[in-house]
Amino acid sequence: MEDYTKHVLGLQLPTDPRWVNIAEKNLEDILVDHAYCEQKAASSCISLIVRYPEKEALVDMLTPVVAEEWSHFERVVEQLRKRGLGLGPQRKDEYVIALSKTARSGGSRERQLMDQLLINALIEARSCERFKLLWKNLDDPELQKFYYELMVSEAGHYKNFIRLAKEYMPAEEVDARWKELLLQEADIIRTLEVRPDRIH
Amino acid sequence: MEDYTKHVLGLQLPTDPRWVNIAEKNLEDILVDHAYCEQKAASSCISLIVRYPEKEALVDMLTPVVAEEWSHFERVVEQLRKRGLGLGPQRKDEYVIALSKTARSGGSRERQLMDQLLINALIEARSCERFKLLWKNLDDPELQKFYYELMVSEAGHYKNFIRLAKEYMPAEEVDARWKELLLQEADIIRTLEVRPDRIH
Repeated sequence: MEDYTKHVLGLQLPTDPRWVNIAEKNLEDILVDHAYCEQKAASSCISLIVRYPEKEALVDMLTPVVAEEWSHFERVVEQLRKRGLGLGPQRKDEYVIALSKTARSGGSRERQLMDQLLINALIEARSCERFKLLWKNLDDPELQKFYYELMVSEAGHYKNFIRLAKEYMPAEEVDARWKELLLQEADIIRTLEVRPDRIH
Repeated sequence: MEDYTKHVLGLQLPTDPRWVNIAEKNLEDILVDHAYCEQKAASSCISLIVRYPEKEALVDMLTPVVAEEWSHFERVVEQLRKRGLGLGPQRKDEYVIALSKTARSGGSRERQLMDQLLINALIEARSCERFKLLWKNLDDPELQKFYYELMVSEAGHYKNFIRLAKEYMPAEEVDARWKELLLQEADIIRTLEVRPDRIH
């Protein structure tokens, strides 16, 4: 796991191993939180399209990502319904709030876009790592298959966001900023409480 | 046309016949505005799901509507690209702004929801009426087919929104409010300038 996290996704700190055990005992909360993660991913890509409509590569790459994230939302709701559970209210996402604060508001539009795309990439990478833990450790074969499929999909998205950032900013600058953000993300994960009811 | 508008969609005022002639001369603006109409429709259904997650029928009905509206967004962008055009910035939507002001903020959550659903139904009905004009009058066979298909789809949505309102409020109250809103919508259409570059 640690190898995968570090070498494939670049994440600097693996998830606390206690997380998956406590998450399994709170499947309803995890599924509800997960549904909103997919909704926020879709909404965040819509916002980027509305903010940068003149950037053709961005519109063309993110438009199908919105559709994919939304189909994941639909699938998570289906898993809830199968278990006789409902969607429940949205929760405050401390991880995404903390990560969003690393975005710099100054500089060019392109630099701001780069920060936003790399933050989206980090969220996808961390989700991917957590989905891998759920795939490997859950007791429910249907959910294991489900998290395996989502893990593969999020891994694709995370690379696409980084590639897209390089369309608008020099590759070295993107790589340097990605390294900085990986360290900041690890600090955020280290500081946040390990919660039984959250994907992040 | 007038019959269709009044008897099928319930709209009280048909679109000014000049609109389609001037719209045809501003195809880029119309397509860009249309793309944002689809985006706003998708975003508005996402907002309703996040605001009323405990309402199972709402979540289950609107989740596929988001996917459908987003696929329309994708198809409009494709039509722009085929013509060598880009998405361009979002425009202020005077029609939707005016219509949104008719929503009452007081009363029960369900009454607020009813107003919101009926406003969405009105936007779909008016879009459907305009798409019909584009289908019937445009000179471009591909776009004619495109607007025919979208007209059918929006007609389905408009009925779904009204049906959904009746899940949460008494049918007579929904019907009475729908009649009021149809008159208010006609007033808004009467007051707004006929714009060559807007779907509404």
